[in-house]
Amino acid sequence: MSATVAPQRPPITFQKVLIANRGEIALRILRACHEMGIHTVAVHSTADAEAMHVRLADESVCIGPPPARDSYMNKAALLAAATITGCDAIHPGYGFLSENADFAEMVHDHHIAFIGPPARLIRMMGDKIAAKRAAAEAGLPVVPGSKGSITTDAEAIAMAEEIGYPVLIKAAAGGGGRGMKVAATADAVVEAWRTARAEALAGFGNDDVYMEKYLSDPRHIEVQVLADMHGTVVHLGERDCSLQRKHQKVLEEAPSPALDAGLREHIGAVACEAARNLGYHNAGTMEFLFEDGRFYFMEMNTRLQVEHPVTEMVTTIDLVKEQIRVAQGEPLGYGQEDIRFHGHAIECRINAENPVTFAPSPGTIGRYHAPGGMGVRVESGLYTGLKVPPHYDSMIAKLIVHGANRTECLMRLRRALGEYVIDGVETTIPLHQRLMRASDFVAGAYDIRWLERFVTEGPESGD
Amino acid sequence: MSATVAPQRPPITFQKVLIANRGEIALRILRACHEMGIHTVAVHSTADAEAMHVRLADESVCIGPPPARDSYMNKAALLAAATITGCDAIHPGYGFLSENADFAEMVHDHHIAFIGPPARLIRMMGDKIAAKRAAAEAGLPVVPGSKGSITTDAEAIAMAEEIGYPVLIKAAAGGGGRGMKVAATADAVVEAWRTARAEALAGFGNDDVYMEKYLSDPRHIEVQVLADMHGTVVHLGERDCSLQRKHQKVLEEAPSPALDAGLREHIGAVACEAARNLGYHNAGTMEFLFEDGRFYFMEMNTRLQVEHPVTEMVTTIDLVKEQIRVAQGEPLGYGQEDIRFHGHAIECRINAENPVTFAPSPGTIGRYHAPGGMGVRVESGLYTGLKVPPHYDSMIAKLIVHGANRTECLMRLRRALGEYVIDGVETTIPLHQRLMRASDFVAGAYDIRWLERFVTEGPESGD
Repeated sequence: MSATVAPQRPPITFQKVLIANRGEIALRILRACHEMGIHTVAVHSTADAEAMHVRLADESVCIGPPPARDSYMNKAALLAAATITGCDAIHPGYGFLSENADFAEMVHDHHIAFIGPPARLIRMMGDKIAAKRAAAEAGLPVVPGSKGSITTDAEAIAMAEEIGYPVLIKAAAGGGGRGMKVAATADAVVEAWRTARAEALAGFGNDDVYMEKYLSDPRHIEVQVLADMHGTVVHLGERDCSLQRKHQKVLEEAPSPALDAGLREHIGAVACEAARNLGYHNAGTMEFLFEDGRFYFMEMNTRLQVEHPVTEMVTTIDLVKEQIRVAQGEPLGYGQEDIRFHGHAIECRINAENPVTFAPSPGTIGRYHAPGGMGVRVESGLYTGLKVPPHYDSMIAKLIVHGANRTECLMRLRRALGEYVIDGVETTIPLHQRLMRASDFVAGAYDIRWLERFVTEGPESGD
Repeated sequence: MSATVAPQRPPITFQKVLIANRGEIALRILRACHEMGIHTVAVHSTADAEAMHVRLADESVCIGPPPARDSYMNKAALLAAATITGCDAIHPGYGFLSENADFAEMVHDHHIAFIGPPARLIRMMGDKIAAKRAAAEAGLPVVPGSKGSITTDAEAIAMAEEIGYPVLIKAAAGGGGRGMKVAATADAVVEAWRTARAEALAGFGNDDVYMEKYLSDPRHIEVQVLADMHGTVVHLGERDCSLQRKHQKVLEEAPSPALDAGLREHIGAVACEAARNLGYHNAGTMEFLFEDGRFYFMEMNTRLQVEHPVTEMVTTIDLVKEQIRVAQGEPLGYGQEDIRFHGHAIECRINAENPVTFAPSPGTIGRYHAPGGMGVRVESGLYTGLKVPPHYDSMIAKLIVHGANRTECLMRLRRALGEYVIDGVETTIPLHQRLMRASDFVAGAYDIRWLERFVTEGPESGD
């Protein structure tokens, strides 16, 4: 099956790429293509006919109305658009069909290159249980826990001592926190296990419970890997994405304030080894929880991440161009020892939302003025007069700032946020401005639960 | 005299800086100050009350009407503004009073720091004959030539053989090309010398003629130096500024396509040694003509250059912040061996001019949209609704692009120029777009006379 192997063919050169996405990422991909001399085909819904990436593309095709399932996620419409316009490759961006293995296979079957990893690996990483198993087999550290159900007090204590306190006891059939107990001592573990089992039986009709290490205040740290079809795998360092609200990343930075050179090198090497073992190619990200100096694999994203620019800023490697080169069958042409890291980068995701209530705020952009100057990068398809439709994700811009070190980066970000003018919709710029003054954030002292507290404590907190 | 010594005092921290300039460079300096936590005072003429840097400054003072001599070059008004607002330093930018030694001394006498080199060196480098002498004494290569007037055929031939052909014979009292002759052989040199002397006598009533090496197609290559008050001097590589029209730079790049690593290291070391010998501190630029592998000193600019961002892009060193740190008395804190060069950068100067006739085009900015994305930096105070006044230099924006190498840089620049929207005035963006398609430019094969030919040959040439 074409999807299970890395094609071993001589490198080709794409003449025309269809960009199966919208918003800032469609523009990002378009820019990379144009800088490589590749023609672009934009697709758009009826709501996005005036989008920046449509205006700048060499050709564009309307693929249907909102919502996304009738356009950006309509596989047949996308394949028809690619076929009609004679594209030799499709870049899926992130979201939408970017991690849809069936779509990747359909693209291959149409003799069009899919700019991403093999469909087999997209499918594997999309199944969270299979992904964890494969990751462990490939050498990635996973959260330690019991293999099966705990059935006696003695077993619970023995397992807890093996794992190390605190431990989390979870109903196998559970969800939403029900049947979940945390225990920090041997006495507590017996009680917690018994209670969890009782709750599991009462709640789910199944008293199977298992145990794993409890991470009380982990950080979200992810490693960017890049692999060609010829066996070269490199990592481009890590990103710290611990600042999240409702599991949505709000701000990301590279490097992580929590890692030292030894940990960085260690997790990078582990990630590369795993990618090699998996037979991965193209760009991918392994997400970990990080606590007390240890990493625990969560999942692998088999696509470009929203936050990829912070990695680009510290490595000066254009990830989208590398994705395209790799998909063309080119060798990377460099190894881990050639990759240099410079300074510090932070990305602020700017959403069309009320910065306090987070209610979406679609509308028509009035005055628009992006910040400029040294170390400032803006990724956005906004312009004066653009209608921000209500049908899609609320992220309308990314402000990415680079500095010689984290302090300069923060000062520059503060300066750039103050220059950014986006009228006509509410934005989360004021939230980022508050963040810049929060002492914990400035100190780099935050975990994945910190931002939820910060936003609920109201506009005066942490300032 | 306070102006002749580098103050040996403990470092201080500026609280408030007056920016004695306008336009993009005022904004550039303001951004650096704000990123360092320094308050800013903008000054402006009555024509610039709505300028971006005025809007963003912590305070602003109107210092008079246009033209510049009544405001931006009015020393008393600037000193009064600095005194009234309690500034502890003045940044002069470029142009206006930036190379006015009297102003630097007056600033010192008001117990305000002048962010620039000692007044003594500003004065020396402002006198082109004294500058050349000082440069030669400090170890910089100058154009070889006769010390005094040539008086016999034999002397002319001997001098020409010493210098090497071709040679240029010039009337000492001449100007504008009159009395200037180029000779490439011994026979020609006798005739040229005699003719030049006759023309000089007829034209200027003075038959003194002298001889120097004729550079037929040199490049303009300049070296950025940076020195603190404690004896540390570094260079930040070179810039190639050969693309000029009527002695105005149009596009600059770093590194120069004409230098190899050996030449780069050589001229950098020579420039540092000269700066050390001169007792220079703060940022400065030594400009050279470069031909056949040799450098010939032209002049030293004792201030920030318009084209400083290309150096910042390849070194990631913020030159304006370094100027401020040095003026505060701080040591640089790094040496030549710590400076790394990454990739390639090009700056396009965008003027409010007709791109073919170069007639100035003042007006009110309509739609304004700056390009974004990876490696793109915009330095401009433009915004929708701003009036571009007719009183000043026509440069309204600088587009600076960085790439992993010159090819990526050119492709990215092409892409970014295509995204730049500036309505309401004519701009030179189309000229830069033509340049991007000119095969000589793409090959890096140009000298200081190339652009004049390119612009006069009309829009079809070189495409």
